[in-house]
Amino acid sequence: MIKTDILIIGAGPTGLFTVFEAGLLKLKCHLIDALPQPGGQCSEIYPKKPIYDIPGFPEILAGDLTRNLLEQGKQFEPGFTLGERAETIEKQDDGSFIVTTNKGTKHHAPVVAIAGGLGSFEPRKPTIDAIPEYEDKGVEYIIKDPEIYRDKRVVISGGGDSALDWSIFLSDVASEVTLIHRRNEFRGALDSVEKVRELTLLNKIKLITPAEVTDLHGDGKIESVSVTKDGEVTRLETDHFIPLFGLSPKLGPIGNWGLEIEKNAIKVDNSLNYQTNIPGVFAIGDVNTYPEKLKLILCGFHEATLMCQAAYRIINPGKKYVLKYTTVSGIDGFDGTRKEAPKAVVQAIN
Amino acid sequence: MIKTDILIIGAGPTGLFTVFEAGLLKLKCHLIDALPQPGGQCSEIYPKKPIYDIPGFPEILAGDLTRNLLEQGKQFEPGFTLGERAETIEKQDDGSFIVTTNKGTKHHAPVVAIAGGLGSFEPRKPTIDAIPEYEDKGVEYIIKDPEIYRDKRVVISGGGDSALDWSIFLSDVASEVTLIHRRNEFRGALDSVEKVRELTLLNKIKLITPAEVTDLHGDGKIESVSVTKDGEVTRLETDHFIPLFGLSPKLGPIGNWGLEIEKNAIKVDNSLNYQTNIPGVFAIGDVNTYPEKLKLILCGFHEATLMCQAAYRIINPGKKYVLKYTTVSGIDGFDGTRKEAPKAVVQAIN
Repeated sequence: MIKTDILIIGAGPTGLFTVFEAGLLKLKCHLIDALPQPGGQCSEIYPKKPIYDIPGFPEILAGDLTRNLLEQGKQFEPGFTLGERAETIEKQDDGSFIVTTNKGTKHHAPVVAIAGGLGSFEPRKPTIDAIPEYEDKGVEYIIKDPEIYRDKRVVISGGGDSALDWSIFLSDVASEVTLIHRRNEFRGALDSVEKVRELTLLNKIKLITPAEVTDLHGDGKIESVSVTKDGEVTRLETDHFIPLFGLSPKLGPIGNWGLEIEKNAIKVDNSLNYQTNIPGVFAIGDVNTYPEKLKLILCGFHEATLMCQAAYRIINPGKKYVLKYTTVSGIDGFDGTRKEAPKAVVQAIN
Repeated sequence: MIKTDILIIGAGPTGLFTVFEAGLLKLKCHLIDALPQPGGQCSEIYPKKPIYDIPGFPEILAGDLTRNLLEQGKQFEPGFTLGERAETIEKQDDGSFIVTTNKGTKHHAPVVAIAGGLGSFEPRKPTIDAIPEYEDKGVEYIIKDPEIYRDKRVVISGGGDSALDWSIFLSDVASEVTLIHRRNEFRGALDSVEKVRELTLLNKIKLITPAEVTDLHGDGKIESVSVTKDGEVTRLETDHFIPLFGLSPKLGPIGNWGLEIEKNAIKVDNSLNYQTNIPGVFAIGDVNTYPEKLKLILCGFHEATLMCQAAYRIINPGKKYVLKYTTVSGIDGFDGTRKEAPKAVVQAIN
C-alpha cells in the first residue's frame, strides 16, 4: 500500500504544481497517471507546441513547461504510479481514501486531488462492425512495442502525424506496410509527408488513397481486411490492422466515483477551495467545472494552491497555518536542500 | 482624456498580465501607477530577490518576472500613466468611469480593474511632533534629486539599506553627512556596511549610534535637530533631515471610492469574477479579499484572467465569446504581429 498526504490523480501541469505548493506546507504527494510519463497532454499530445498564455513566459514549449514543473517540485520528492489508471475509490472509516488502479496498485491518503485534465485519452476507433472481436487479435490502436510487427504484414489507416510517422518507422521493421487514408491529402509535418512519398516510390510503403478499411476477416485472429476504394471492395491479406485516428478524452472510471458531474467535468465549490461533493476529494484544473470556469493551465495553478490549504487543514486539524512568502522564508526541500534569497547582514559599524 | 477598454489601477505583475489576457479578447488596457516604473513591489522593493513560487519557474528574480510580463503583453500596446496616483472615480450616466490622478490626468473606461497590490507604498515617518511643519522645508522622506543636497549639511536617520546607501552616495555630494541610528547594528548588504565603516574612518560620514533624532528646530525651514543619545540631548546644525525608515503600504484614496473594504483589502465576489460591490469595478491580486484568499502572484494571474471575461461581456453586451487556446489559434497583436505554432501541412502524396 502506497501512503501519502495528497493523492493526485493526473500528472499534468496542475498535478505537478500541486507537489510544489503542498511541499511548502510540508505535505507529501503521490501522483497516478495512465500515461507512462508525467506531463499529461503537454507531454503526450503537444510537447513541441508553444504555449503563449503561461504567465511570465511570452512563449514556452509544452514539454519544457513539464520539465520546469518537475524541477520546481523535485525537492519535495513526489511519488509516481505511472502507466496505471485510477479505477476505484473507497472511503475508510477514518475519512481517508484507498484508490486502486487497473493493475491493482493501492494508494492510501487522507486527501485526494483529481487533476485529471480532460480525462484519460482513449484512441478513436473506426466504425467497423467486426472490430471489437479482433481487438488484441491483430487490431491495435496504440503501438506499444514495435518489435511485435517485425517481418509481419501491417495495414495502417489514418491521415495524420501518427499514421505517417509509424508507417515510416515500420517500413524498416515489418515485411510489408500498407497505408490507407480516406483522402488523398495527409495532414502532418512537412518532412514526414515527404518521407512517406519517398518510401512509396521505393515500394517500402504501399499507399492506397482515397480508400477505407470497411471489414475485417480471419479465424480467431486477423487474416485480411476489406478495402473500399471508389466504391469497389478488394481484399488485402495482413497480420495487423492499426487504425491511428487520434485520441479522444474520456473521464473514465472517475465518472463512477459518486462525484457530481456536469458536461463530463466534476462540479466543485469555487467560492472556497475546489472541493467536490465528497469531503476530502478535490478536483482541480481542466477536470473541474464551476461558474465562470476557464480550462486554462494558469487557472489550474491557482486552484491547486487554494486546494493545498484546505488539505493542510484536513491533515492537521486545529493547527493554524500562516502563509509565508518563499521570497522571505526560502524553501526547505524534503530531500534536505534549502533554497533561500541572500539575506541582509546585521552588523555594528563602530 | 485617455480612453481605453480596461483601466487598470496598479502596474504590478497582476496588472501587467491583465494586458495580455485582455489582449486575447481584443480589449485594450491602460495602467496607472504611483511608481515611476511598471512592476509594482517586484520592481520597487525587491527586484533582485528570487521568487520560488511562480508556476514553471523554479526560481526567478522579481525584476525578471516584470520584464517577462511586459514582453508577454507588449503586442497589445498598453498605455501607461506612471508616477501618478489614481485619486477619484466618477461613474458616468452610461455606466462607464472617469478616473482622475493626483496630477489631474483623466482616464475614461467602461471597466476599471484595481490591481493595486498592498496599496501605494508610503514612507514610514518618525514620531517627532514637529515633523509635519518641516516637510518639504528641509525634511524629505524620499530622495528624488540628490543634487539639492550639494554642499549642504545632511542628517540621515535609519538602519537599513536605504540609509546606508544614501549616506555613501551623499558623502560625495553634501558638505557634511551625519548618519543616526537607534541601534549600533545596521541591517543591509555586507559591502554597504563595510563602505560606511570605511567612510566613517575617513571622516566623510559622521556616525551617531545608538541615538535618535527627537526634535526639529528652525524658522520656516529646518536649521538644527535634537539628537538624544544615552538620555542626553545635543543640538546638531543641519540643512536637511532625511528619515529613511522604509515604505509601508496604504490603500490610499481608493479607500474612499465607496468599495466594500475589509482589513485594508477590497471585498470581491470570488464565486464569479472578482467584481466589487460596484458593478464594472473589479479588484484583482493582493488588493482584494474573499474567503480562502491567498496573497500570491499566481492567484492574481487567475483572477485577472477570469475578470477579463467579465469585462468582455460588459464591453460587448450580447456577443458570445468562445475560448480559443493560444496553442491552437495563435495570437494577433494590436501592433500587427502574429504569433503562431507551426501548422501541420496538408498535402497529397500521390
